Amino acid sequence: MTDRVVLAYSGGLDTSAAIPFLAEKTGAEVVAVAVDVGQGGEDLEVIRTRALDCGAVESVVVDAREEFAADFCMPALRADALYMDRYPLLSALSRPLIAKHLAAAAVEFGGTHVAHGCTGKGNDQVRFEASLAALNPSLKVVAPARDYAWTRDKAIAFAAEKGLPIDTTKKSPYSIDQNLWGRAVETGFLEDIWNAPTEDVYSYTADPALPREPDEVVITFESGLPVALDGRRLTPFQIVAELNERAGAQGVGRIDMVEDRLVGIKSREVYEAPGATTLITAHMELENVTVERDLARFKRTVDQRWSELVYDGLWFSPLKRALDAFIDTGQRHVSGDIRMTLHGGRAVVTGRRSEASLYDFNLATYDTGDSFDQSLAKGFVELFSLPSKIASSRDARLG
Amino acid sequence: MTDRVVLAYSGGLDTSAAIPFLAEKTGAEVVAVAVDVGQGGEDLEVIRTRALDCGAVESVVVDAREEFAADFCMPALRADALYMDRYPLLSALSRPLIAKHLAAAAVEFGGTHVAHGCTGKGNDQVRFEASLAALNPSLKVVAPARDYAWTRDKAIAFAAEKGLPIDTTKKSPYSIDQNLWGRAVETGFLEDIWNAPTEDVYSYTADPALPREPDEVVITFESGLPVALDGRRLTPFQIVAELNERAGAQGVGRIDMVEDRLVGIKSREVYEAPGATTLITAHMELENVTVERDLARFKRTVDQRWSELVYDGLWFSPLKRALDAFIDTGQRHVSGDIRMTLHGGRAVVTGRRSEASLYDFNLATYDTGDSFDQSLAKGFVELFSLPSKIASSRDARLG
Amino acid sequence: MTDRVVLAYSGGLDTSAAIPFLAEKTGAEVVAVAVDVGQGGEDLEVIRTRALDCGAVESVVVDAREEFAADFCMPALRADALYMDRYPLLSALSRPLIAKHLAAAAVEFGGTHVAHGCTGKGNDQVRFEASLAALNPSLKVVAPARDYAWTRDKAIAFAAEKGLPIDTTKKSPYSIDQNLWGRAVETGFLEDIWNAPTEDVYSYTADPALPREPDEVVITFESGLPVALDGRRLTPFQIVAELNERAGAQGVGRIDMVEDRLVGIKSREVYEAPGATTLITAHMELENVTVERDLARFKRTVDQRWSELVYDGLWFSPLKRALDAFIDTGQRHVSGDIRMTLHGGRAVVTGRRSEASLYDFNLATYDTGDSFDQSLAKGFVELFSLPSKIASSRDARLG
Amino acid sequence: MTDRVVLAYSGGLDTSAAIPFLAEKTGAEVVAVAVDVGQGGEDLEVIRTRALDCGAVESVVVDAREEFAADFCMPALRADALYMDRYPLLSALSRPLIAKHLAAAAVEFGGTHVAHGCTGKGNDQVRFEASLAALNPSLKVVAPARDYAWTRDKAIAFAAEKGLPIDTTKKSPYSIDQNLWGRAVETGFLEDIWNAPTEDVYSYTADPALPREPDEVVITFESGLPVALDGRRLTPFQIVAELNERAGAQGVGRIDMVEDRLVGIKSREVYEAPGATTLITAHMELENVTVERDLARFKRTVDQRWSELVYDGLWFSPLKRALDAFIDTGQRHVSGDIRMTLHGGRAVVTGRRSEASLYDFNLATYDTGDSFDQSLAKGFVELFSLPSKIASSRDARLG
Repeated sequence: MTDRVVLAYSGGLDTSAAIPFLAEKTGAEVVAVAVDVGQGGEDLEVIRTRALDCGAVESVVVDAREEFAADFCMPALRADALYMDRYPLLSALSRPLIAKHLAAAAVEFGGTHVAHGCTGKGNDQVRFEASLAALNPSLKVVAPARDYAWTRDKAIAFAAEKGLPIDTTKKSPYSIDQNLWGRAVETGFLEDIWNAPTEDVYSYTADPALPREPDEVVITFESGLPVALDGRRLTPFQIVAELNERAGAQGVGRIDMVEDRLVGIKSREVYEAPGATTLITAHMELENVTVERDLARFKRTVDQRWSELVYDGLWFSPLKRALDAFIDTGQRHVSGDIRMTLHGGRAVVTGRRSEASLYDFNLATYDTGDSFDQSLAKGFVELFSLPSKIASSRDARLG
Repeated sequence: MTDRVVLAYSGGLDTSAAIPFLAEKTGAEVVAVAVDVGQGGEDLEVIRTRALDCGAVESVVVDAREEFAADFCMPALRADALYMDRYPLLSALSRPLIAKHLAAAAVEFGGTHVAHGCTGKGNDQVRFEASLAALNPSLKVVAPARDYAWTRDKAIAFAAEKGLPIDTTKKSPYSIDQNLWGRAVETGFLEDIWNAPTEDVYSYTADPALPREPDEVVITFESGLPVALDGRRLTPFQIVAELNERAGAQGVGRIDMVEDRLVGIKSREVYEAPGATTLITAHMELENVTVERDLARFKRTVDQRWSELVYDGLWFSPLKRALDAFIDTGQRHVSGDIRMTLHGGRAVVTGRRSEASLYDFNLATYDTGDSFDQSLAKGFVELFSLPSKIASSRDARLG
Repeated sequence: MTDRVVLAYSGGLDTSAAIPFLAEKTGAEVVAVAVDVGQGGEDLEVIRTRALDCGAVESVVVDAREEFAADFCMPALRADALYMDRYPLLSALSRPLIAKHLAAAAVEFGGTHVAHGCTGKGNDQVRFEASLAALNPSLKVVAPARDYAWTRDKAIAFAAEKGLPIDTTKKSPYSIDQNLWGRAVETGFLEDIWNAPTEDVYSYTADPALPREPDEVVITFESGLPVALDGRRLTPFQIVAELNERAGAQGVGRIDMVEDRLVGIKSREVYEAPGATTLITAHMELENVTVERDLARFKRTVDQRWSELVYDGLWFSPLKRALDAFIDTGQRHVSGDIRMTLHGGRAVVTGRRSEASLYDFNLATYDTGDSFDQSLAKGFVELFSLPSKIASSRDARLG
Repeated sequence: MTDRVVLAYSGGLDTSAAIPFLAEKTGAEVVAVAVDVGQGGEDLEVIRTRALDCGAVESVVVDAREEFAADFCMPALRADALYMDRYPLLSALSRPLIAKHLAAAAVEFGGTHVAHGCTGKGNDQVRFEASLAALNPSLKVVAPARDYAWTRDKAIAFAAEKGLPIDTTKKSPYSIDQNLWGRAVETGFLEDIWNAPTEDVYSYTADPALPREPDEVVITFESGLPVALDGRRLTPFQIVAELNERAGAQGVGRIDMVEDRLVGIKSREVYEAPGATTLITAHMELENVTVERDLARFKRTVDQRWSELVYDGLWFSPLKRALDAFIDTGQRHVSGDIRMTLHGGRAVVTGRRSEASLYDFNLATYDTGDSFDQSLAKGFVELFSLPSKIASSRDARLG
């Protein structure tokens, strides 16, 4: 039987031309799999047909938008996942999901190999291959861009030569990856890190400096998950999508940073994540209200590790599962409403209310009704600071 | 010899009336010490005289603005210190400095006791007393508000009864602490955490929603410390003060949060820290450019612990010194320029350049000149993900 | 209705005399609750009757040995819990269990107060009171030793005066706490930390230096829990008890250390924990075989926090629950056999075998059958060390 | 000019035969560098001459024993470095030192390449190459065992063919690495992890089960470094060497474990480290006496990271330098005497005394002289446990 390569297919020029290229190079049949993670763009059916037109023996499209929101974005939200305190992990979240569907297609269509379009200097190759290694270690991986130096120019020439039904004239100066959780942009002039992004780099967000009316939203959470906007119950996908619209219209969620890649280099990245930014801001403040102090302090360490691990491609890993168990347990009471103002590039919390609040007005107030027993403080302060007091006396004694 | 109490003196109603009150209550003479940490307001000499008029046997004023900036704010900046990822520790930074001057005055004027105006439910009592315990464990502490329930109403009545030269008619609805690094506000209506702050709560920052021209600034750092603005070399104090003006005028640095106090309760706090916010944002991005990945990852754990420790009042402690040594060592090459746009409540980095940059254009670029050897990636990816691959095979085997 | 105090009752002199003392001091009725956590000693029924003879209105004894082993010792084992890398937390584990039974008795017998015999400078007061605060915040706590300076001498005098049926002549020079998980000893001459413990300090362990035959044991674990010794399936209690005997007979598990108490002082402690030491040693090695590297590395941080938290008395806390969830998830495959030699004070692992092993002979061997692809290593090494290589070049360039 | 390869030379069969092999394979001249890190064995001059006899154009031997002890073992001791809580990093410490001398020889003798004998599945290749990348990124690396599958059998055949003056008849069944800090053994029958080590595996340690007299030693530390044994001032090298003898004679320091290698596999390792084990045990207890609690708690996290980083080969890295700065600062007062009994495989601390002790007899004692104010405890306990108390009330309220 002929070998089959399951290709992560985007519908674009590079992966379309890769279909006959891979067939030629490996002698295998190509199965194209396109996954909708909310990236927008062309109709899925158009994409499905194009793969067949380019020579795929099978072509599958998967609408994974709700799955992506529920099973990948929501855990990231509960983890307040911001790699290097800033990047909400958008590409890092979609890669394990796509890998899962590639592995499933390999089972369904008898694939022995999997192919992806990533280069050898990015993070995504690791995310695909680490996920595939975990999901099905017997699958072999081909990465044309890395293994055969399959570049855009070669793809264009190859498409012309083969007469593939692909438009090779469209040319974006930007390298873009986008999905429900946000949009990533890299490009030539941004590789000079002294250059500021120009307005045309952005697509999910309007210019925050333009005058407009503020938008107020109330986000309702249950156990760390958003369940409603302004009182309307919605699915996770619907909530992120609506906030992408509303916060994006206010210019919320632009990120411009130098980032540490897993492969050991620093790169310049521009991101837009209006919905993710809004939700993480809201979620963090609701945690401030409902999570006990020691748990909150340790959770920061857990969240950081979670973010690094997922950034590094280890979504399907024993540590990830254990970190998730920690986080899930602590989210039980992260329920309530957060009111925010979206305006001028800012998503600002203006109110919080929760049945599960640990904020106790009577303990906190300086007005009538204060129930805090201040006489307890003296003993607390003395014993709390006793170790450093003893150490200071020692230091003074020894000079 | 009569005992002497060294009082942390603000010049305001409560601590002015506390001078004769403490004398009466303890039989001791009162030495007033006022420390200028950039809080603005009245002339120091006016404050000095008022203490004498209220009965202090000695009255000292200290201009500690440069010391506060250099020795307290700058280490916080190097630590990217944000308690709970948000609060830049402004009061937590001034308390150990004031304690240091109180302890010095106790030596100079023969003080046996130190008095401060903090209540028993706040953090500042811990910060004062833990600092004093470390600096001079033989000093005894009196806290009238906590130990004698010395309230504002009692202070007003006492001042009237004694005919003290204090204006008791001014009445702010807000409880405020402010210094060079920022301003903290608490008040009755904010104790309902569903209420949004009103515009009159703010003083360091203009309304971010008002239209105005953006302000662009270039901040130059050497070894993690800011040394110039727009090419003009300035002291740390001058830099923070100028950025308070410029970023404040753009509405940058407002923070509204529910916070975990050391004494075990949650409280609602509103802060303004335009200069601190701008500097920390710039500093973090310069670290992204100049600090090696493993060091940057571990530094987040160190920074979090630093922030918690200083929030908790343990500035003068063995752990603080060791964390500072870690941070100092890692800041050696955090040098270069950060260009920012201050506008509409946002302080946004738009460019970075550094002789010490670890960003390598030739390794990062996807254009001509790429020097990254992609053939190395395959081996890296395979061995990097080998442990989770082996674990996944085991899991699959055992079902 | 008369108030009722639920007293943590040991059967010994101090708490027996405390029954009428508390009644006199508080005007309340006393309910005595004795909990068997494997401490051995007197028959529970004798203890129950003695409390009544001393004036208790109710006297309850609870055989909590299996509960203690299963619900308190086993989680500690899974956490490899060693405070300061050495102390297996024995007293820290029993206190929350006893508090739980005190709180239950308060419900059953209408108690409004709870009393314990701890002093104000130890850890156990915190463990009792933090547990009670979590279990039933409305219960008030009385601690005669701390609150009324109720000392042994006062107890003897009071017992004589009241003619209580207690033997006041027995006098141990040691202060001892013991249970299934181990035994803690404090005493006057050990308060000089240059003094070595004498042999009579020990009771659970024989002198390791005495000649004897080694004992070999095979411990079987399932999901991190020991289930059999030498192939005989036993309960957790039976396993710890048998290993206390067998390892204790070989002198295993003596610990002598200076320890950081929660109340801020350092103290000298001597412990014996033959069963706990043996089990933790075995468990750690089985984890080495069955737990994936990244999970194992992060688990050390979790285990340390778990140990500190439980030492500090916060068994019933949100963070403890979340840490347990992390640990439980990671223990799923910690199953297999560990063979150990117990001899001369040492518990040494000599073999391990597991269906869930991640040790792969074919990857590890240097002999025939080696399946490790060494050609992958070069790329791995280069990219793994790339960040520090780039940083070194920068450092060299800047001098 | 002809290229020159600087070879890490041991004097043994494999690296001796590698001299002409490398010359043949690469066309370069070979410079042999042998470094004495306390591994014992042959005279250095004999080794130096053998390299020349095998065809090296230059042969250098370096007595680095004091340097290894002072600059590599002592920092490990201060870090209480035990990878996976057990392995004292012996090979991981010598590799960066050897790399340093290789890089120096490359400068001295015009080397463009460096060669080492490590395979592609061990840790040492990473340690050599990461160190070399940091010390001199322009050096190229050749690893015959990995890159040319240069095995022992090939070396024997090659030596016979070339008539090299090497004894090819000696055959150890073990693969061994040893230095001052300890000895590592791998071998065929130990690759079955159910097999126990046999007595002939060991060389640094006597059988702990044999009867003998105990040995008592007093180790004096200054700022975390050992400076004297039984009152005799010695160099770091002399101290480790003497303790290797004395603790080794008592069977102290055997370790048998399954270990996580950096290259992603688990391996079975047997180590002997009598001196290191004794010193780390002593040092940890002296830290218990002299280091403040918060610092001690955080240091465990730092020590773990230090151990992982050095195990992983990143000795010359920015994070390592920063961790060292943390550790150094905290070691200032780790001074005093530790008395230990070495016997029967155990190194047991029996006494500690220090001018810098934080153990305060008067605070700790339960006898006359107690200066601890127990009245402070109640307030401390209540506020310390307040957050989990509030959370428990919330949990109970919500059910």
